[in-house]
Order: sequence, then C-alpha cells, then structure tokens
Amino acid sequence: MKINMMHGAGGAVFGELLGETLTKYKNNNAGGIGLESLDDGAVIPIDGKNIVLTTDSHVVRPLFFPGGDIGRIAVCGTANDLAMMGGKPLALTCSMIIEEGFDIEILERIVQSMDSALEEAGASIVTGDTKVLAKGEIDGIAINTAGIGIAEKPVRDSALKPGDIIIVSGTLGDHGLAIMTSREGFDFGEQIRSDVAPVWNLVNAAMQAGEVHAMKDPTRGGFSNAINEMAEKSGVQVRISEESLPIRRSVRSASELLGINPLDVANEGKVVMGVAPEDAEAILAAIKKDKYGKDAAIVGRVVEGKSVIMETGIGGERFIEPPVGDPVPRVC
Amino acid sequence: MKINMMHGAGGAVFGELLGETLTKYKNNNAGGIGLESLDDGAVIPIDGKNIVLTTDSHVVRPLFFPGGDIGRIAVCGTANDLAMMGGKPLALTCSMIIEEGFDIEILERIVQSMDSALEEAGASIVTGDTKVLAKGEIDGIAINTAGIGIAEKPVRDSALKPGDIIIVSGTLGDHGLAIMTSREGFDFGEQIRSDVAPVWNLVNAAMQAGEVHAMKDPTRGGFSNAINEMAEKSGVQVRISEESLPIRRSVRSASELLGINPLDVANEGKVVMGVAPEDAEAILAAIKKDKYGKDAAIVGRVVEGKSVIMETGIGGERFIEPPVGDPVPRVC
Ligand SMILES: Nc1ncnc2c1ncn2[C@@H]1O[C@H](COP(=O)(O)OP(=O)(O)OP(=O)(O)O)[C@@H](O)[C@H]1O
Ligand SMILES: Nc1ncnc2c1ncn2[C@@H]1O[C@H](COP(=O)(O)OP(=O)(O)OP(=O)(O)O)[C@@H](O)[C@H]1O
Ligand SMILES: [Mg+2]
Ligand SMILES: [Mg+2]
Ligand SMILES: [Mg+2]
Ligand SMILES: [Mg+2]
Ligand SMILES: [Mg+2]
Ligand SMILES: [Mg+2]
Repeated sequence: MKINMMHGAGGAVFGELLGETLTKYKNNNAGGIGLESLDDGAVIPIDGKNIVLTTDSHVVRPLFFPGGDIGRIAVCGTANDLAMMGGKPLALTCSMIIEEGFDIEILERIVQSMDSALEEAGASIVTGDTKVLAKGEIDGIAINTAGIGIAEKPVRDSALKPGDIIIVSGTLGDHGLAIMTSREGFDFGEQIRSDVAPVWNLVNAAMQAGEVHAMKDPTRGGFSNAINEMAEKSGVQVRISEESLPIRRSVRSASELLGINPLDVANEGKVVMGVAPEDAEAILAAIKKDKYGKDAAIVGRVVEGKSVIMETGIGGERFIEPPVGDPVPRVC
Repeated sequence: MKINMMHGAGGAVFGELLGETLTKYKNNNAGGIGLESLDDGAVIPIDGKNIVLTTDSHVVRPLFFPGGDIGRIAVCGTANDLAMMGGKPLALTCSMIIEEGFDIEILERIVQSMDSALEEAGASIVTGDTKVLAKGEIDGIAINTAGIGIAEKPVRDSALKPGDIIIVSGTLGDHGLAIMTSREGFDFGEQIRSDVAPVWNLVNAAMQAGEVHAMKDPTRGGFSNAINEMAEKSGVQVRISEESLPIRRSVRSASELLGINPLDVANEGKVVMGVAPEDAEAILAAIKKDKYGKDAAIVGRVVEGKSVIMETGIGGERFIEPPVGDPVPRVC
C-alpha cells in the first residue's frame, strides 16, 4: 500500500492510516492523556500540574496568503491545539526544513510574523532546529512547531453530554476558501481572508464563564470532521441547525463556484465547543466580547444516539458526514 | 541572500544564519533557559520542576543504514538533547511529512523502530501530526520529534571551568562514517555501524557519580563543533590529547580514504562532558559500566584562555577548528 494525498488530509482516510500504522506504539502514554485519545494534544500530570504537549507541521502554500502566512499558522496552529486541551500556551519549539536556494529575506519575514503571533498568543519560541535539503528535495519550506502549555482543568474532545449546547466561535470556512481563491486567482469583490489567529484568550474567557465539556479546533476536514469526531468519541448525537451556522456571504459564493462545502475546509482561528446548557448564554456572551469571537453562535445541541444531523430550514434532516479528506491540499 | 547546504550543516555558516535570522524573536524565553542560550534544549521552571523542551527534524538517508534507521535517530536525537540538559526523557511528539507514493510497509518498520528506541529511552510518543506532500514536493519522509523531560539539576553546555576534565562517552565519528560508507557502497572489511542510541542512562550514571559541569552531544559538526561551542560559550581553553581520542580503526581508515576528518562528522549516541577534576575517575568508571559507554575516555582538560588546542603525540600543537559545516549532507 502506498501513501496518497488523502492520507494527509485529516479526514476518514487519514483516520485509517492513523489507527493501523501511525499510532502502533506500545509506548504511547506518559501518564494522563496520551496518543490513545487522539485528541488535539496530550496532557501529562507532573506534580499536580497538567502539562499539555502538542505538535503540528506546516506546509501551506502560498507561503503568504490573504490574512496570514506560514509563520502565523505555525504559531497559531500549535497554540490553538494547546488551548483545545484547556492549556494556556507557554513555550514553543520551531523546526524548519528549508530548500537550498530559499530566499533569506522571506525567511526573515516569516520569523517576524511568528514573533507577532507569539506576542499575541503570550508564548515564546525557546528552542529549534534547522535542516537544509538540496534543491528539489523539499518544496520551499516546512515549519514544525511543538508546544507546551498548562491546563488548570484539561478539556477533551470526547466529553459531550446529552443536553449540551454546541457553540462555534465564529464564521466557518474562511481559511480554506482564502487559500483556494488566492491560489486560483479568483476575485469575489470582497477578498476572502484567512481567520488564522490564536484563540486562548477566547477559550479562557469561555471556561471562566461556565462549564465547557468538550472542545476541538475545526482545522483540516473543517467543521464536518471536528463535530463528527466529537460526536463519535463522546457516543452521542449532535443536531446542528443549518440556519444558525455563521458563514460569510463571500465564502458561501466562493464555495458554490468551486464546488466545495465550506464546512469541510480548514479554519485556523475557530473553536467548536460543547457546553453545559445552563451556561450556554453566558459562555456565548464571553466569547463574543473577544476580538476573535464576534461572530460566535449557538449552532446545535447534543442528544442521545449517534451521528451528526443537519436540521434544514424547511424542516428536513440530513447527515453531516466527515469528509474523506479536506478538499484543499496543503491548506496548513 | 539564498540558503545553501552549509546553512543546514550545523557548523559556522549555520551559526551565522542562526544569529542573524532564526533567533530574532523578542519572545524567546519562557523563564529559565531559552533560545538566547542556544543550548541543546530549553529549560522552563514550573512550580519548582525543571521542564526541559527540545526538538529536531530528521531527514537522514538512506532511511535504513548500518546500525540504525531514521526512526531510531528521530527518537534518540531528541531524547539525547533532553539528556544533555540534564533531563530524563519523558514524552515525545512525532510529526511526519511524507511524500505521496511512500510505501506504508516502510512506514510501519519506521514506527516499530521508533517504538523500540522509546522502550530503551524510557519515553513515550504521546501526540503527533502527519502531512502528505505531492510526489516530488518532499524526498521520501521527514520526521520531527519534540520532547519534554525533567531535570533535577539542569546542565548547560557553557559552564566549563578551568581545571575541568573532558570526557567523551565512546568512539567518535561512527555515525557520520557509517552513513557515508553505506551511501558510497564501500566495504572496509568490518562494516562501520552508526552509534545511534539513547544516552540518558549513561548521563544519569555520570551525574550520580560526580559533578558534571557541562554537556553537549557531538551531532552535526561532530566533536570539533561541540567542543568549540563549549569552549567558546564557557570562555575557556580546552586542550585535547590526540592520542587519547577513541576512534575505531575502521572509522579511521574510511576517513582517510574519503578525505573526511572523523572529528567533524556526526555522532548520535555520544556525549562530551566537562567534569570536576576530583570526580573524573569516578564518573569515567560509571560511564564505562553503561552499555553505550564502554569506550569512554578522558580526552582533555580545561584551562584559562580560549580556543581548542590539539596536543599531538610528538609534542606538537594545533587548533581544532569548528568545521564550516558537517561534511556529510543529510546525516541525521
Ligand atoms: N504521525 C503521527 N504519529 C503519532 N500521532 C499522530 C500522527 N499524526 C497524527 N497523530 C495524532 O492523530 C490525531 C489527529 O491528528 P491531527 O493532526 O488531525 O490533529 P490536529 O492537529 O488537531 O489537526 P490539524 O493537524 O488539522 O491541525 C492527534 O491525536 C495526533 O496526535
Ligand atoms: N529554526 C530555528 N529556530 C530557532 N532556534 C533554532 C533553529 N534552528 C536551531 N535553533 C537553535 O540553535 C541551536 C543549535 O541548533 P542545533 O540543531 O545545531 O542543536 P542540536 O539539536 O543540539 O544539534 P543537532 O541538530 O545537530 O542534533 C539550538 O539552541 C537550537 O535551539
Ligand atoms: Mg486540533
Ligand atoms: Mg492542529
Ligand atoms: Mg537540532
Ligand atoms: Mg544537541
Ligand atoms: Mg540535536
Ligand atoms: Mg495536527
């Protein structure tokens, strides 16, 4: 069997590779939440402190796109996976694999962008690594960041409970469609911009405002993938109301034109959470106060059963399926 | 300016890129030892515990070589950088960038090899990431590991003191020459094998036996690079006795044939340490008891001054210079 593009697209095909090959370690847990949980990161209790650990490699192209660049994604991607575990981002590593001939001025711009994102995320890059490959052995640059954070109270993606309310922290599909339209050179009047941003402040505000049972960032595979993983791991059914889903008009039209479901593509500054029903309004209000949470919305609820169901405006129902893989290659 | 191969070879040219571009973060320290120290990793004090954090990406080829493979290096490389900071390896991340068409059976062998190395290192892989690039966008596979460990007492590479004794934990040049000779298809009667191995047990034994002032693993750029960095950062001179340096006969002849200095190439299971003179014999004895320390030797001493001097058998002296870069590309 050979690796194909879908194996890296964060959807169902990737899930198989993950289960059958990539997670076959006997040494898969250091106490706490380990690889067996397939969550956004791991949690390792050390002397009563919960250390969160996570990693992501970034190969997005173009390197600079409307709303962000590979450096900003490299910092936010990892900071956000820490936040998804309930962890305040603290320290990151940065490992770059660079192609011979790569322009050092571009590298400088990337480093500057990472530094601004760090400033915003409240974290630091404290160690790194650099490998250079010969021309043609890597396309441009790949940036890995790993990070540690500290969680007062770790949050899993698998603890949705019947009765919970589903909140998304803002509009869906912006990042994937920004990459796609900028690559294709489309112009939709208003430019579609990536949402790439660090969400710890927003997440922290939500956790202070009430009980957050489960969180996940809808990155590769988008909202469809994240909400299906959450529902399946929690052993519950999620019912989404189609009309409540925040999607920008420009994103909607671009999606239609490109034949892409905006719910299947990556977001880089959003959270999907399941919260206690009695706290839902307070949590929503707290999120909306944050810079990156203005378009937050209650989009569904959790019931007993399985699968994710979309309730349409005209009283119909259909499944929201996890995508086979994110339809946009090299999206992050 | 463009990136060239020397920028990734861990020597002097890389040092420039590091100083002028890659470390220009305002956000470079999370408390404790940060990026400013350019040590093997960072140390972050959390509630009285010293959390060590480090990362390395691995792009070695061939993927399987005499004595090891990319998976074993990926685990040992990071575990050893943790150990160099005085940290017991605890949990690792694994992020893979894979080329479309890569054989899944080879991936399985790599994962198995990582798992055996984890077993030996006493650590676990607790979280990861996978990206797939289209055919031709990456040559085979690149594996990043980041890791955390816990240090009772952090050890820097910059704390050599005049009077200290320099110990190396075994033969030098094995890994670099194994890669080079296996690539070139040379046969030196006895096959040269990589030394790739986790060294925490050896390091821990040394630290229990006496005062270890400074440590570094002589990876890219080899012993020459590591000892020069240690001397320069510590503001001291190191005097090495040429005759005491443990180098295998096969490695020596291969080096001569290939025109490579065995002191300039990577080791993947060795430590260079500076220890208190009164503890040197006890520490050496402790290291020699370890599986990976049998060939350990006292190779030099620290005096006031600067530079690294090689004292030759015939009473001569010459500088040991840090190499411009490791002469073997894609060595780790
Ligand atoms: N090569 C790998 N080795 C070990 N675990 C992996 C590997 N690739 C992914 N994982 C694990 O699989 C799960 C899903 O990974 P994935 O990268 O999709 O999560 P994510 O980082 O939250 O999403 P994204 O990468 O799209 O931001 C995570 O628990 C991750 O730790
Ligand atoms: N891209 C980068 N960003 C930030 N810091 C970096 C980067 N590359 C290297 N560094 C830092 O530079 C120093 C030297 O890195 P280097 O990779 O040579 O160390 P090492 O891992 O001990 O050696 P090797 O990679 O050969 O095993 C380290 O302190 C490392 O944290
Ligand atoms: Mg995630
Ligand atoms: Mg992620
Ligand atoms: Mg390194
Ligand atoms: Mg090192
Ligand atoms: Mg290293
Ligand atoms: Mg990931």
